[in-house]
Amino acid sequence: MANIVILGAGVMGSALAVTASTHSANHVTLVGSPLDDEIIGAICQHRHHPVLQAGIPPAVVCINETELDHSTMHAADIVVIGVSSPGITWVVNKIKRFNVAPACIALVTKGLVAAEDPQLPPLTYADALANDLDPRCLVGIGGPCIARELALGFPTFVTFGSHDVAVAKKAREYFQTDYYRVAIHSDFVGLEACAALKNFFCIGVSAMLGAWELEGQHAKNPVAALFNQAVLEMALLSDWMRHGSESSSNRTIDDETTVAFDLPGMGDLHVTVGGGRNSKLGTLLGQGHTLSEIVKGPMKGVTVEGLDTGRQLLAGFNRALATDTLPAAKLPLTIAILRSINEDALFTFKFSEYCADTW
Amino acid sequence: MANIVILGAGVMGSALAVTASTHSANHVTLVGSPLDDEIIGAICQHRHHPVLQAGIPPAVVCINETELDHSTMHAADIVVIGVSSPGITWVVNKIKRFNVAPACIALVTKGLVAAEDPQLPPLTYADALANDLDPRCLVGIGGPCIARELALGFPTFVTFGSHDVAVAKKAREYFQTDYYRVAIHSDFVGLEACAALKNFFCIGVSAMLGAWELEGQHAKNPVAALFNQAVLEMALLSDWMRHGSESSSNRTIDDETTVAFDLPGMGDLHVTVGGGRNSKLGTLLGQGHTLSEIVKGPMKGVTVEGLDTGRQLLAGFNRALATDTLPAAKLPLTIAILRSINEDALFTFKFSEYCADTW
Repeated sequence: MANIVILGAGVMGSALAVTASTHSANHVTLVGSPLDDEIIGAICQHRHHPVLQAGIPPAVVCINETELDHSTMHAADIVVIGVSSPGITWVVNKIKRFNVAPACIALVTKGLVAAEDPQLPPLTYADALANDLDPRCLVGIGGPCIARELALGFPTFVTFGSHDVAVAKKAREYFQTDYYRVAIHSDFVGLEACAALKNFFCIGVSAMLGAWELEGQHAKNPVAALFNQAVLEMALLSDWMRHGSESSSNRTIDDETTVAFDLPGMGDLHVTVGGGRNSKLGTLLGQGHTLSEIVKGPMKGVTVEGLDTGRQLLAGFNRALATDTLPAAKLPLTIAILRSINEDALFTFKFSEYCADTW
Repeated sequence: MANIVILGAGVMGSALAVTASTHSANHVTLVGSPLDDEIIGAICQHRHHPVLQAGIPPAVVCINETELDHSTMHAADIVVIGVSSPGITWVVNKIKRFNVAPACIALVTKGLVAAEDPQLPPLTYADALANDLDPRCLVGIGGPCIARELALGFPTFVTFGSHDVAVAKKAREYFQTDYYRVAIHSDFVGLEACAALKNFFCIGVSAMLGAWELEGQHAKNPVAALFNQAVLEMALLSDWMRHGSESSSNRTIDDETTVAFDLPGMGDLHVTVGGGRNSKLGTLLGQGHTLSEIVKGPMKGVTVEGLDTGRQLLAGFNRALATDTLPAAKLPLTIAILRSINEDALFTFKFSEYCADTW
């Protein structure tokens, strides 16, 4: 069926390797980054991924980066960028060094990069890579998908997005299984924006898990109210990013659901709140700790993607508020999270200040 | 400020009484239905609601229905219908007997009524009441709001909807507090449809809580995937009901968010999954029990609103599928829930049968 090369043996790249290998016709190579030597060693020895805590089938060829050769890269029908954000440069160098131009590059890595021009919204990683990789080949993956559950075969729906839906459909052919069901969307930038923003908004929604307790459990009304608010604000911000992005080749998608109100936004936020590092940080903020206390204490040394997303968002967002490009009255949650993570302020969301007439 | 009469001392009506009474200028009367004698007795004795498990402030006048007099009803600026669905007839008779026409009637009761003409979608309760009550006075209340949390002062956002937004705004003046924040929407029928449908969809999403277990907890990917799917299908069904409803006076609301993707749909579904009777039924279905087993066993004698909603939906829905008024391919969750509750079939949602191209 296809030669699939996955660069980076982190949890999501490895889970996709497991999924792709269920098609016996696929030939899947999982390539460890320079940081993945232990993982690759463990897989080779036990066929078990120590971080993912799941088996890796024998059909997945697992190698260190030094073992990656020219012929494997040139035979690839699809390359999956499976590293976390600090590994992006390694991936780009790898692709450049082998001088390959795969027909399809799927992007697991999510994040934002502040635009050089502060007048503009931040870029998604996908856009930031446009100088190095052909944007027409890129496929974004969004939707509710905890890597370990995927590797263990629990069912989910996700979305593959691409400027060219034919490319996204090709990628789907390689990866879709009975339990990993893939929707297609042409709003690539919106999808990538939501995939990054959901980590950021997860912090604010999860603050409600920590802030309001009722008989030993969190109260549910505040969580649901801010979950809803987060999706509304994600729609506004992803739309702003989509229209501000010069590399977006198709800006009007009138016949499709806004991705924020679908798997890459609402669906992924649902699964992100209540588990993982972004949610843990938010819960601690909601309990009344400041960010500086948290990163020196219970979450010392832990990478929290939503934090970085917030920092990359800040300058462009403030500029957009100042110029009325974005309506402050409709973005109270964004403002509350940014204040908390950029000014080290206690997280507060004043419900009393907001009612729909001004939203 | 206002004379508020709440008919029915169930949990939601009583929680709204507590909320309204925080405005010292309001005069709030909570009237027990013929089924509420014990509750009213307990409140009068201890100022504590035994089902809501929350205090009722002295400012709330609590009376039995036999104590309700002409002058109280005629002085009412707003009447709240706070009964569960079997009490609707009692409320209508009360309003007719006193021959009052309040400027504003807020509706807490949610549900659907199958249309007499099987060609048409089911009606919401609000529409079904249109012969008895002036539809222009009706205000629907939707959004994430567990009654007990409201009575205890936990914050939330809700939506008041009305054919005439001025009426909804008037009702908001009486009820909005620092913690009970009220958005306004003119899609009254859509709001009422979502308020009923969320109980129905909660059954299907909650089935995932029972169906997929990972190390003693439910897997999260399937829940999030079907939460997303439920909201998409709620949008389709509420739109169908809105356009099929002859009493809907304003059918095009282009400048507003679809209510399904806002507090009455997405937000309320979020809070409903994981707690309450609809969710319990869904979880048991997901664990592999049939409906008949459940209603004879663990949920004997328990009223489950989403079940009744599904039954009222059935005939019109099947007709709409047969005539291609609704697209079956985009409604797999609705079909799966209906099969389970109307044919007593094991609940199954076959992820493998669905991918986005056909949705």
